[in-house]
Amino acid sequence: MALSLSSFIELLGGELHGADVAILGVASLDQAGEGQISFLANPRLRAQLQSSLAAAFIVRPTESAALDRPHITTRDPQLYFAKVAQLLYPQPVAVAGIHPRAVVDEFAIVAASAQIGPGAVIAAGAKIGERTIVMANAYIGEQVEIGGDCLIHPNSSIHHGAFIGDRVIVHSNAVIAGDGFGNAWAGDHWEKIPQLGRVLIGNDVEIGSCTTVDRGALSDTVIGNGARIDNLIQVAHNVEIGEHTAMAACVGIAGSTKIGARCQIGGAVMISGHLEICDGTTVLGGTLVAKTIREPGVYSGSYPMQTHDEWRHNAAHLRHLDDLAKRIKQLEKELRHTQLPVGE
Amino acid sequence: MALSLSSFIELLGGELHGADVAILGVASLDQAGEGQISFLANPRLRAQLQSSLAAAFIVRPTESAALDRPHITTRDPQLYFAKVAQLLYPQPVAVAGIHPRAVVDEFAIVAASAQIGPGAVIAAGAKIGERTIVMANAYIGEQVEIGGDCLIHPNSSIHHGAFIGDRVIVHSNAVIAGDGFGNAWAGDHWEKIPQLGRVLIGNDVEIGSCTTVDRGALSDTVIGNGARIDNLIQVAHNVEIGEHTAMAACVGIAGSTKIGARCQIGGAVMISGHLEICDGTTVLGGTLVAKTIREPGVYSGSYPMQTHDEWRHNAAHLRHLDDLAKRIKQLEKELRHTQLPVGE
Amino acid sequence: MALSLSSFIELLGGELHGADVAILGVASLDQAGEGQISFLANPRLRAQLQSSLAAAFIVRPTESAALDRPHITTRDPQLYFAKVAQLLYPQPVAVAGIHPRAVVDEFAIVAASAQIGPGAVIAAGAKIGERTIVMANAYIGEQVEIGGDCLIHPNSSIHHGAFIGDRVIVHSNAVIAGDGFGNAWAGDHWEKIPQLGRVLIGNDVEIGSCTTVDRGALSDTVIGNGARIDNLIQVAHNVEIGEHTAMAACVGIAGSTKIGARCQIGGAVMISGHLEICDGTTVLGGTLVAKTIREPGVYSGSYPMQTHDEWRHNAAHLRHLDDLAKRIKQLEKELRHTQLPVGE
Repeated sequence: MALSLSSFIELLGGELHGADVAILGVASLDQAGEGQISFLANPRLRAQLQSSLAAAFIVRPTESAALDRPHITTRDPQLYFAKVAQLLYPQPVAVAGIHPRAVVDEFAIVAASAQIGPGAVIAAGAKIGERTIVMANAYIGEQVEIGGDCLIHPNSSIHHGAFIGDRVIVHSNAVIAGDGFGNAWAGDHWEKIPQLGRVLIGNDVEIGSCTTVDRGALSDTVIGNGARIDNLIQVAHNVEIGEHTAMAACVGIAGSTKIGARCQIGGAVMISGHLEICDGTTVLGGTLVAKTIREPGVYSGSYPMQTHDEWRHNAAHLRHLDDLAKRIKQLEKELRHTQLPVGE
Repeated sequence: MALSLSSFIELLGGELHGADVAILGVASLDQAGEGQISFLANPRLRAQLQSSLAAAFIVRPTESAALDRPHITTRDPQLYFAKVAQLLYPQPVAVAGIHPRAVVDEFAIVAASAQIGPGAVIAAGAKIGERTIVMANAYIGEQVEIGGDCLIHPNSSIHHGAFIGDRVIVHSNAVIAGDGFGNAWAGDHWEKIPQLGRVLIGNDVEIGSCTTVDRGALSDTVIGNGARIDNLIQVAHNVEIGEHTAMAACVGIAGSTKIGARCQIGGAVMISGHLEICDGTTVLGGTLVAKTIREPGVYSGSYPMQTHDEWRHNAAHLRHLDDLAKRIKQLEKELRHTQLPVGE
Repeated sequence: MALSLSSFIELLGGELHGADVAILGVASLDQAGEGQISFLANPRLRAQLQSSLAAAFIVRPTESAALDRPHITTRDPQLYFAKVAQLLYPQPVAVAGIHPRAVVDEFAIVAASAQIGPGAVIAAGAKIGERTIVMANAYIGEQVEIGGDCLIHPNSSIHHGAFIGDRVIVHSNAVIAGDGFGNAWAGDHWEKIPQLGRVLIGNDVEIGSCTTVDRGALSDTVIGNGARIDNLIQVAHNVEIGEHTAMAACVGIAGSTKIGARCQIGGAVMISGHLEICDGTTVLGGTLVAKTIREPGVYSGSYPMQTHDEWRHNAAHLRHLDDLAKRIKQLEKELRHTQLPVGE
């Protein structure tokens, strides 16, 4: 599929400079060639702009004067580029039908336009919406409801009690609505606390590969509209994640914690249970969040890397920081005492 | 299914106060309504007890006098509630039989009362016990032995050499008895060290979604009776986990480490290899355990979160803590020297 | 299969001492018995060597004089042992053919000697090389190319755009070439940035269970020959991992980071995006790598574990380290001022 620069402008806005060339694909500045469009968002890459072999560019208006090749100007070239790429590389479109090797229970309701792949298993009472694709060997449990235009990747497991909105992507080997980790100590063993809540996932959510979202214990685990959850993330029972919050890979969120809207959670952040994180909070990668955050802002907390020799010398003192602090206090006291006679 | 309060008391003990009402389900204090029972374990939620619309309650004897609605008194309301929930929401019961879309090797032995779901694959020599459920698209490798009343969730992979006891739950997409990470450096490349040990899992164990338990290198990886292992946990080769030890999500345990019985390991704890952690140890979330623990107790070690600005100022000094400590020592030396003449 | 000590020497080198006994298997020093060979690499286990019931041993030349039982001497007993174990316990050999319950697209190309297990799904345009085994319920997407002698474990998901070399092992429930985490903020929601790159995996690579290797955004994610990637690892889009680099479980690598050749990355190391780590670098477990490493060496950075009481006292001061440092500076200033009159 080829699209002209002017067709992008018609659909997405922006201003055309130079010839209205036809575009077949996208690429980075250093790899683009004939028929490809690229973009400059980071001014540090400006040198690549001049040497790039791309057929056209997406740039800020300030770059336009120095650029004598076809380009589109826009305030946010990366966002514009994302939308151009969506047009050139659309999500897969459902090929309506149930593969003969899929196993769909007679009491499941699959929309006529949905596509169910080979080996997929759809249990009794499950509902699959219009144009949704359930790929190979995915498991959709009893009473699960999945909206329209979703993409459920291979080998993912979605259990009873999951409600999933429209245009949701669940990546491969993710697990939605598995049991939460609920155990009561019975003196000499653990008794399992049945996990009876649901998982409610809004519209336009993306759930990464091998990510696990547990069902609630009594009430529900909730992921708001537009949230973006990367790979290998643990979302424990009764967690709530606000709309348009994004979290990078390897994050863990313990039970009943509420994360606000439009937060950005860095990779490997670990968040304790029963906390609240307010809207618009950013937590940098590797931080352990052990208390509620009430003020939006940027938070961090990680041990800085050193050579192992340096670390050994420094980390040893960490165990005695309380002692060092007391010695400083004592020095201050003594010095104040000492200075007096000197001043006389 | 409805059960009367007196039937709970008959099965579980406790004392009835007020009418012997019929109970259909459980819910939290703030969400419970007609036909539902709730409980109060945390005294801070006492206000919710008064306003709750639950039909009945489970409380400590000390709460009884102030409560004029039907309730059961017991020493541990949360534990009692767990057992009530187990009665009202029993684990799924196996529907005996092999789904026509399951693939069971002719040399596998599946108990007559077991249930094998669609797409499940049972390899040669595997044994599946009475009333065990193997759900959709799970893989059970050669010679695997699974006891009775187990629940093996969809898309999990259990490899040859795994021995699993009775009443074990393996959640979705978990991997049991994959190869351990064994490599010998051969000067210019790694040689794989064949992983020849087994994985032995006791009775009443629960293994979380996307958790990986590697087979032993030469001897075995062992998980004791009643252990509770949450999601996204790595159990490396030759690890031993004691009975009734519970670990929250995102934990990693390196090779050959032995964890005692009745330990509680918080989320995202990372434990180095070849260590021992004694019975009854608690490790708080986010701690890196790099040495053996011989005394039971509560251990921790994580960098506290701050605003990013505060963190930048403070963390910079961490790299020079050794220097700060030396300067304190020097100050103490000088001050002692200074004070002498002053004292004269 | 039994092999004599002299047959090992013929294939692997080393020197025979004592009788040329037949070996059926391998075991650790303390568990070995009749027909088994064991090895001593760690001198601390020398006592076990004397008491071991193994039929033969692999030891360094320096251990030979004190050992009156059959043994092979070699410079690196562990490496030799690995190779002996490979001979005695070879990788599974493909049984050529496509299981009737596999689903192979008519436009997929499967080598005649390859083995495709039950429930495996091979999409259009995929190529599976000679003697490669694709196990039960694995998913191989469109246009995926997998070389010869590979072992693709059950329930793994390999998406379109993945190119995999020869002799690669992909463990169970791993996900290769899922979408990278690319989102552009559009003022009030995230726009997905289509992920268009590939994943290129060299020869002799091993990818652990539940590990996720994302496809590149525009260019490719690359894993070099001989790399060893353990379980539950996140490899983000456009990451490059050099040849023969090994990383232990629970590592996370953010986007576009380049890791050199022959690095060793410990468990739970988290590496920020857009960094470079030079060849031959070792990073110890639990370290957060937030800056480029240009000098090979051993790096670390983790908060040391203490009892929770000690930690509470010490960690509180971490939040005020900047203040402590300033107070030390002030003390030094005052003391210098104080000393002057004293010296007069």
